[in-house]
Amino acid sequence: MSAMTLYIANKTYSSWSFRPWIAMTVKELPFEEVLVPFDDDGGNPKFREFSPTGKVPVLDHSGATVWESLAILEHLADYFPEMRFWPEDLESRSLARCVSAEMAAGFATLRANCPMNMRREPSAVTMSDALKADVARVETIWKTLLERSGGPFLFGPLFGVADAMYAPVVNRFEVYRLSEDETARGYMETIKALPAWKAWEEAAREEPWTVAADEA
Amino acid sequence: MSAMTLYIANKTYSSWSFRPWIAMTVKELPFEEVLVPFDDDGGNPKFREFSPTGKVPVLDHSGATVWESLAILEHLADYFPEMRFWPEDLESRSLARCVSAEMAAGFATLRANCPMNMRREPSAVTMSDALKADVARVETIWKTLLERSGGPFLFGPLFGVADAMYAPVVNRFEVYRLSEDETARGYMETIKALPAWKAWEEAAREEPWTVAADEA
Repeated sequence: MSAMTLYIANKTYSSWSFRPWIAMTVKELPFEEVLVPFDDDGGNPKFREFSPTGKVPVLDHSGATVWESLAILEHLADYFPEMRFWPEDLESRSLARCVSAEMAAGFATLRANCPMNMRREPSAVTMSDALKADVARVETIWKTLLERSGGPFLFGPLFGVADAMYAPVVNRFEVYRLSEDETARGYMETIKALPAWKAWEEAAREEPWTVAADEA
Repeated sequence: MSAMTLYIANKTYSSWSFRPWIAMTVKELPFEEVLVPFDDDGGNPKFREFSPTGKVPVLDHSGATVWESLAILEHLADYFPEMRFWPEDLESRSLARCVSAEMAAGFATLRANCPMNMRREPSAVTMSDALKADVARVETIWKTLLERSGGPFLFGPLFGVADAMYAPVVNRFEVYRLSEDETARGYMETIKALPAWKAWEEAAREEPWTVAADEA
């Protein structure tokens, strides 16, 4: 096993950090964690010291620098094929990549109006039509995939990249009370019951930092 | 060989359509092309008829729907491994995925201020600091990769996903005169000399439609 260090930001807010972190933790891959908190504006010039884009997360894998959440997850899938980060059959893998790329690139309203916040007391927000459309699209994706796979995860019995990509959405749906859909609520319970989820959430609750922009 | 149909929008403007199209054409994968032009606002409700996100491009592969440019390229790499869409060694593949994901997610200023436009007469634009930073980052990526691989493509002798992801940037650098860097100019000449590039550009020039928002 080679040495891995994952550079992340605040567990309370950093949805991009959460994605590879929860995947590596669920799969029990050993790694060192380095947390560099956000400045007030949601960045930090210190990220430049380890990140070629000045953003988090970044994985250092035996000296190789890997950046962008989705590329880190692809990297892990390639280096640890026995962990089955992606479904094995080509058709499911293709579909998992579509919904993962869609999460990485889309849902602009959901992302801007409902930032991930692991410490927020759940309370509803006013929903614009654009936000409703984003929520409905996530519900459709989850329902379609869970019906297709039988659950409990999006592609069946194993937690995978798609689940990691949608994990921050589970928090958003919860703390902004965005969905009452039964299938969505069931999937959210599955994800929140993971020891990896609980460990991240607990650490977030102990963080001393607050980023005003993310306290919507 | 199974049947593939690629749904795209205007060749003049649709940078996302261009990415899988140029990759499939360079690799000589047979496919049918269906072009549905943008409305004035850069969308089209008709996209919904074939696209689960209402966006282009979409690949129909023997009845399976594949969306998001990067996921389409991953799909092709999985189904046609002999085409070597990704570099074969794990380290290069990881790096290729990092720069491809960075292109898919980043460069907001370059994308917003300098939309791809295959018919634009080259002329310089005023460069903000944010635009300069985006251009410098692309130059760094290209130089680093070309020095590492020896070129002529980003990962060596074969055109791959990373080249496809940066192909629209070649047009942007050209028509807005964004870079005088010698390595960048050389790489741009390599890409523009591809028959696939020329075929796309020629078809763009014959399109009757104009989208005002993309005529910066």
